[in-house]
Amino acid sequence: MESRGHAGEVWWHHGLPVHTTDGRRPLERIRTSDLARHVGEQVLVRGWLQHRRVLSRVSFLIVRDGWGTSQVVPGPSETGLDELTPESVIEVEGRAVAEGRAPGGVEVREARIRVLAPAAAGLPVDLFRPSIDAALPTILDHAAVALRHPRRRAAFALMDACVAAYRATLREQGFTEVFTPKIVATATESGASCFGVDYFGRPAFLAQSPQLYKQMLVGVFERVFEVGPVFRAEPHDTPRHLNEYVSLDAELGFIADHREVMAVLETAITAMAQAASVFGAASQAGVRLPVRVPSRFPVLHFTAALDLLATELGPEVRSEPDLAPAHERRLGEWALRTHGSDFLFVVGFPMRKRPFYTHPDPERPAYSNSFDLLFRGLELATGGQRLHRYDDYEAALRARRIEPAPFAGYLEAFRYGMPAHGGFAIGLERWVQQLVGASNLRETTLFPRDLGRLLP
Amino acid sequence: MESRGHAGEVWWHHGLPVHTTDGRRPLERIRTSDLARHVGEQVLVRGWLQHRRVLSRVSFLIVRDGWGTSQVVPGPSETGLDELTPESVIEVEGRAVAEGRAPGGVEVREARIRVLAPAAAGLPVDLFRPSIDAALPTILDHAAVALRHPRRRAAFALMDACVAAYRATLREQGFTEVFTPKIVATATESGASCFGVDYFGRPAFLAQSPQLYKQMLVGVFERVFEVGPVFRAEPHDTPRHLNEYVSLDAELGFIADHREVMAVLETAITAMAQAASVFGAASQAGVRLPVRVPSRFPVLHFTAALDLLATELGPEVRSEPDLAPAHERRLGEWALRTHGSDFLFVVGFPMRKRPFYTHPDPERPAYSNSFDLLFRGLELATGGQRLHRYDDYEAALRARRIEPAPFAGYLEAFRYGMPAHGGFAIGLERWVQQLVGASNLRETTLFPRDLGRLLP
Repeated sequence: MESRGHAGEVWWHHGLPVHTTDGRRPLERIRTSDLARHVGEQVLVRGWLQHRRVLSRVSFLIVRDGWGTSQVVPGPSETGLDELTPESVIEVEGRAVAEGRAPGGVEVREARIRVLAPAAAGLPVDLFRPSIDAALPTILDHAAVALRHPRRRAAFALMDACVAAYRATLREQGFTEVFTPKIVATATESGASCFGVDYFGRPAFLAQSPQLYKQMLVGVFERVFEVGPVFRAEPHDTPRHLNEYVSLDAELGFIADHREVMAVLETAITAMAQAASVFGAASQAGVRLPVRVPSRFPVLHFTAALDLLATELGPEVRSEPDLAPAHERRLGEWALRTHGSDFLFVVGFPMRKRPFYTHPDPERPAYSNSFDLLFRGLELATGGQRLHRYDDYEAALRARRIEPAPFAGYLEAFRYGMPAHGGFAIGLERWVQQLVGASNLRETTLFPRDLGRLLP
Repeated sequence: MESRGHAGEVWWHHGLPVHTTDGRRPLERIRTSDLARHVGEQVLVRGWLQHRRVLSRVSFLIVRDGWGTSQVVPGPSETGLDELTPESVIEVEGRAVAEGRAPGGVEVREARIRVLAPAAAGLPVDLFRPSIDAALPTILDHAAVALRHPRRRAAFALMDACVAAYRATLREQGFTEVFTPKIVATATESGASCFGVDYFGRPAFLAQSPQLYKQMLVGVFERVFEVGPVFRAEPHDTPRHLNEYVSLDAELGFIADHREVMAVLETAITAMAQAASVFGAASQAGVRLPVRVPSRFPVLHFTAALDLLATELGPEVRSEPDLAPAHERRLGEWALRTHGSDFLFVVGFPMRKRPFYTHPDPERPAYSNSFDLLFRGLELATGGQRLHRYDDYEAALRARRIEPAPFAGYLEAFRYGMPAHGGFAIGLERWVQQLVGASNLRETTLFPRDLGRLLP
C-alpha cells in the first residue's frame, strides 16, 4: 500500500473553520451558563427559543441551551420575530450586558437572530410556565418535548449527579464496577416475575436483578458494584412501581454480618445526598431541602417496627410478615420526628418473606440478617447478608422446593470457597422521586415502562 | 409512637467489636496490596488459597484477595496444611517481613492459618499457572472459578478503569449521563435483528442500541452519554460477535458535521488508552503496550480505503459497499505502518449501508457523514452525523419503506426544533479484547451470551 500523503487521505483540523470569508475570526459559541464571564463582549449563543415576551416597546427572547437559559433583546432591525415558533433552534449574536432583572444577571442586547432549525407550530405541551400544565399521560406521551422543560430536565441532571457520587464513593472503598448479563436462563430468584425472551427459539428471561452474578463476582473481586437496568414483570399499577428501572447494586465479601453492608450503604447514601444538596441548591430540580442525613441512620428491628405501628394501628399489625406502604410512611414520619432523619433502616425481616440466598439471624433464625432502607417513608433500598456455604444453599433450595440444576454455575462459587458476604440494591428513580417529592415514579423516569406504556 | 430510646430500637457501632475477650484490640485486616507498608508489624490477611508450594523444608501459601496476592510462610506449629484445598477462604495472621524473592517484596512469616470457608476438592480449572490450561468453553462454563484467575480478573479490572476514564472525559466536556429503556416497542432501527419480549401479552423488543433515545435527549441536554447493555439477535457465530454487550454511547448537538463527533470520540479514546496504559503497566492484565495513540487519528475516506485495498487485493474490492473483517485488518496494519497509529478512522461509508437517520455528505450524497473507528484492525466504534430536520426524516423513512407511525414519539423531537447533531457507540468488550490481544471476544466478557450460551 502507499505511504503517508496518499491522495485520497483526508486530514483536517477538527471543528469549525478558523476564518470566515470576510477574514473575521468567527465567534466561539458560549454556553448560557458562562455568559456572566463575558459581560461587555460580543457573544454568540445557540439554543432553543423557550419563550418570547412582547412588551409595548420591546420584546425579549428566552433562549435555552444545555446548561441554562438567557434573556435576549433583539436589535431594532430584526424582523420576522412574530413568526418565530417556540422551540425553534436559533443562533444569537449580540453584546452581553449586565442586567439585574435578567436571569443570571446578564442579557444579550442588540442581538441578531438566525434560525437554525424552525419548530412546527403547536407544541404538544407548553414549556414556558414554571411547570407543565398537562396531565401526566400527556407529558409522558410527548417526552421528546416535555423533558425539555427546565424543571423536568433538572430532575435527570440531578440523577446524573447522584449516580456519579454513588460510583465515586464505592470506588474509593475498593469496589470494582462490573457488567453482568441481562438475558438469563433462569427465572427463579426472589419470586419477582420475569419477562420471557425468545432466545433463538429457546426460552430465556430478563434479569430481575444482578444478584446471582454480583455474588459470584465477590469470589473474584471481593467488592463489586453495578449500575444497570432490571426488569420486573409484576402487573402492578401503582405510582411507585415500574417494570424496568435502574438498580444501583453493590456486593462485598469478608463481612462480619449485614451491619457492614449497611455501613457501606450509609456512605453511598450520604455521598448521594451531599451531591443532591449541592445540586439542589443551584438548580431548578426542586430538591426538597434539607436532606436530613444523620451521621448514623436510625435502625429498628422488624419486630420493634411492628410494636411501634401497633401503638397507632392496633395489635393486628403484629401478625404482618412484611411492611405495607402505609406502614413505611408512618415509620418514616417516626424517624423524622424522633431522630430528625429522612432515613430509617428496618432490619431482621422474617426469613419466609426473603429470597433463598438470605442469611438468617444466627440468634433468631426465623428472622434474617437483611434490611430495608426507607427514605422519607418509602422503601429505597434492600439488602442483607447472604448465605455463603455450599451446604446452606443446598438446604435452602431444598426447603423451598427449588430445582438446583439451573443454578449449577452459581453454586460453583460457593462450592469452591466463598467468604461471608452481603450487598444491597438502591432504586435510582425512587431516590430521585423522593428527593424532589414527586408523587409518581414516572415523573423521575426518562421513558417509563409500565403495564400500559411501551412508548415512546 | 414512642420517642428515642424505645426498647426494640437497635443502635450500634458498625463493624467488628473494638476489643476481644482477652482485652487485645483485634488486628484490622490488611489488603495484600498494602502489606509493604506494614513491614515489621503483626498483620492479618484474608483471602483465597491460590496455591500451596511444598519445598523440602518449608511450604509457602499464595493468598489472593481482591487486590493482589501475597506469600505466606506458616509457623512451625501449623498442622493440617496438607488438607487445605485450593480456593479455600482463609485468614492469616503473622509478621510482615521484607523478602525480595516474594511477590511485592514482602511475605507473612510464622503465620497462623484459620480456614473461614473450605473449598471442595477438584477445582474445575487450575488457577495457579500463568494462564488457565483449558479450552475456552470449559473456562466459560466455570466462570465462577475461572474469573478468579489473576490474569482473567485483571482484564475486567482494566475494563472498569477504562469505563471510569470514558465517563470522566465526557463529563468534563459537559455531557450528562442518561438511562434509557431496554424494552422497546419497535424493532426496526438499523436493520440489526432484535430479540422479542412478551410484554404482558404484547409484542416488544430488546433495544439494539439507545440510538433513538439519545437523539431525543440531545433536544433536552445537548450532550448525553450512556453506558449500558445492547442486544443483537444476529445468529453470528464468530470470535468477534456476541448477542449482548456493553455499548458506550454518546450524542451531541450543535455540531458543524461528523468531524466534531470524531473529535469527541478521540478525546474519549485517548483518555481510555491512557487509563489502560497506566493500568497495564501495573497489572497482570496483559495489555499490549504501548497503545499507540497519535494526537490526531489518521482518517481515510471509504473510497480511499478501497483504493488502498485494491493495490493489495485487486480492483474487484472497489465494488464493495462495506469493509469486511479482512479489509479492516489490512487497513489497521497500514495505519500502524504509515502513521504509527493503532487507530484509524474510515469516513464516508455509502449511504445505502447505513441506517435511515444517517446524514449524507452534502457534497457527495451517495456517501454519508458517518465513520467507523478501527482499533488494531478491528471495528471498535461507529458513528456519524444524523439527520435533524423533520422533513428529512419523513423522506428517509419513505425511501426505505419504513412505516413512520411507530416512530411518532421520536419524530416529535425533530418536528419541534433539533440542532445538527451526531454521536458514536464504542463496543466495550471489543475495546478490552484489542487492548489485551485476546483472540475471542468471549475472553473479555464476564458472562458471554451467544447462539449456544445462556449460562452461567
